[in-house]
Amino acid sequence: MMFTIEQEIFSQDRALGRTARYLQEYAGGIRAALREDRPEKLVFLGCGSSYMLAAGAAHLFSVRGGTQAVALAGGEVMLAPGRYAGLFEGALVLPLSRSGETSEVLLALERMKQRARFRTLGITMKADSSLRGRTDLLLELPWAFDESVCQTRTVTNLYAALLELFTVYSGDESLRESLGRAVEGQGAWISGHSGDCRRIASVGWDNVTVLADGELCGIAKEGALAFTEVCMLRGEYFRLLDYRHGPIVVADGKKLVIAAMGPWEESYQKQMVADIRKRGAAVAALGAQEENIWGADFYFPVRGIADYAAWGLPFIALCQMIAFYKAVERGHNPDMPDGLDPYISLD
Amino acid sequence: MMFTIEQEIFSQDRALGRTARYLQEYAGGIRAALREDRPEKLVFLGCGSSYMLAAGAAHLFSVRGGTQAVALAGGEVMLAPGRYAGLFEGALVLPLSRSGETSEVLLALERMKQRARFRTLGITMKADSSLRGRTDLLLELPWAFDESVCQTRTVTNLYAALLELFTVYSGDESLRESLGRAVEGQGAWISGHSGDCRRIASVGWDNVTVLADGELCGIAKEGALAFTEVCMLRGEYFRLLDYRHGPIVVADGKKLVIAAMGPWEESYQKQMVADIRKRGAAVAALGAQEENIWGADFYFPVRGIADYAAWGLPFIALCQMIAFYKAVERGHNPDMPDGLDPYISLD
Repeated sequence: MMFTIEQEIFSQDRALGRTARYLQEYAGGIRAALREDRPEKLVFLGCGSSYMLAAGAAHLFSVRGGTQAVALAGGEVMLAPGRYAGLFEGALVLPLSRSGETSEVLLALERMKQRARFRTLGITMKADSSLRGRTDLLLELPWAFDESVCQTRTVTNLYAALLELFTVYSGDESLRESLGRAVEGQGAWISGHSGDCRRIASVGWDNVTVLADGELCGIAKEGALAFTEVCMLRGEYFRLLDYRHGPIVVADGKKLVIAAMGPWEESYQKQMVADIRKRGAAVAALGAQEENIWGADFYFPVRGIADYAAWGLPFIALCQMIAFYKAVERGHNPDMPDGLDPYISLD
Repeated sequence: MMFTIEQEIFSQDRALGRTARYLQEYAGGIRAALREDRPEKLVFLGCGSSYMLAAGAAHLFSVRGGTQAVALAGGEVMLAPGRYAGLFEGALVLPLSRSGETSEVLLALERMKQRARFRTLGITMKADSSLRGRTDLLLELPWAFDESVCQTRTVTNLYAALLELFTVYSGDESLRESLGRAVEGQGAWISGHSGDCRRIASVGWDNVTVLADGELCGIAKEGALAFTEVCMLRGEYFRLLDYRHGPIVVADGKKLVIAAMGPWEESYQKQMVADIRKRGAAVAALGAQEENIWGADFYFPVRGIADYAAWGLPFIALCQMIAFYKAVERGHNPDMPDGLDPYISLD
């Protein structure tokens, strides 16, 4: 393997296994923080990729968990802490940071602690980071840390960790089982589809739209960002049917659409694929069906993962692989995107 | 005036005045729905532009109002109503629709009514639409209806209506006063800045990034969509400092950044503007200061509107005007974007 990011994308399955075991060990502490301490609300805090995953987690806890859950970017809280005092009071705050060193997250926590009483449950991929000592409970997943600037393995593991947190919180056994299957199957999924992803990358598109609903909203937005960061092409995210309400006007033959077809319905979603293809864009779809009933140009059947939220793991792997192969094809070094730092340290 | 959209953008101030008076009349009904009926949570429902404004409203009610508030796209609810039954139970659902005819919103309501008990408070710009009879309280603002396909006056008025709903809900007098000033000042703002917007449109950028924090998240995303819809250029939205965490890598001399500089801090935000300009992009900024302390290429001082949430009115007007002038310059007919319908009717 030539690139660090390649090694990280293709070894995410092993990291996932360790993450799953680690979270089992900490299940007691997680349960105490999320349930027994009775937080009135949850505030997920992140920057960039981790902010996107924070937004997805807020959706999951809010819509499926019935709790008040909000995602905030570290920067907005740091700049104007006084505006968030009411929200943070009595909350469980969940800072998410690959490095545990992102200034905006650390400053947000520090400034909010002067203004409100809240508890914290952090997740980071670095052992012994600045987040340690600043959180009541800190989950450290150093085996998932990405050395390359663009996050890949990190976000896959962070997403799995957030789903696991939700299963502990909600006792949702269906999601737990699906998450277990997704973790187990990730290695075979990646090796089984790398050739397809390389082929898709070789087609002549130069921008990407990612479509998915509900709980996938955060990880799918991260999938779109992967194209911007890894291969310097534009990526955007929308909810599946909502794409027709405006943004579809700029879809054309230079666009690749990557879409998660919800397992709950066929005809409206099939029509959506047809409408996109009519404009000239190519569609790569994931679905629960064995056959490509969707009329997509490329099709990836998701097998044995019943819960849609757990599709995030195979979904993000596809985005990462396609973005990686596209970068190679375009002659970009995906380990060194121009002007991007692995984490932002404010002066 | 040559174009319908032009007439609609430039008459939004008169519509806003009527909207403000109308909402005062309905304040009793709004208060009953939002406070006295004691909804456990709020669910904002929309498609496209109105989904974006739904997301901003959910942020406002959640972060500043301390209530559980969620935004959903009509399409995701319609496709999988069973997944949302728990959320809708006991909620106040707020369908937002320019036409009151958007299939996804109507079908979402219909399917959810079979699965949960909830009350509804709708907002539409059409009198006597299909939403009437399907909502417990329906606010109809026909003077704000846009005949042109792309929404401009509609979203400005919808945004003002949502802020007004929040002031009734929260009793937030500071926001009420700021909203009043923004409504009063919109006409002078538009006529005073149309020349600047025309000049900005003539500069050689071909894509736009819109940056703003907090309560502006929905209306700023709509501002970005205006570029896609009105002048067929790509528009994207990010929170201000979060832009540095990835997406900035594709900023260059072809990009225009439109940013709302929060009135709570100067140095980090100033550095953000400098970092963007260093990459070659042009920055048009709004700020509370009389002088352009930000080092932006174009600067618009917001005068006399203390509450940041109310900045949404001048902010969206700038985006709409720049997008309109850009469309004219590019020879696009902004009343007839290729392949976009005024509202989506599913077969």
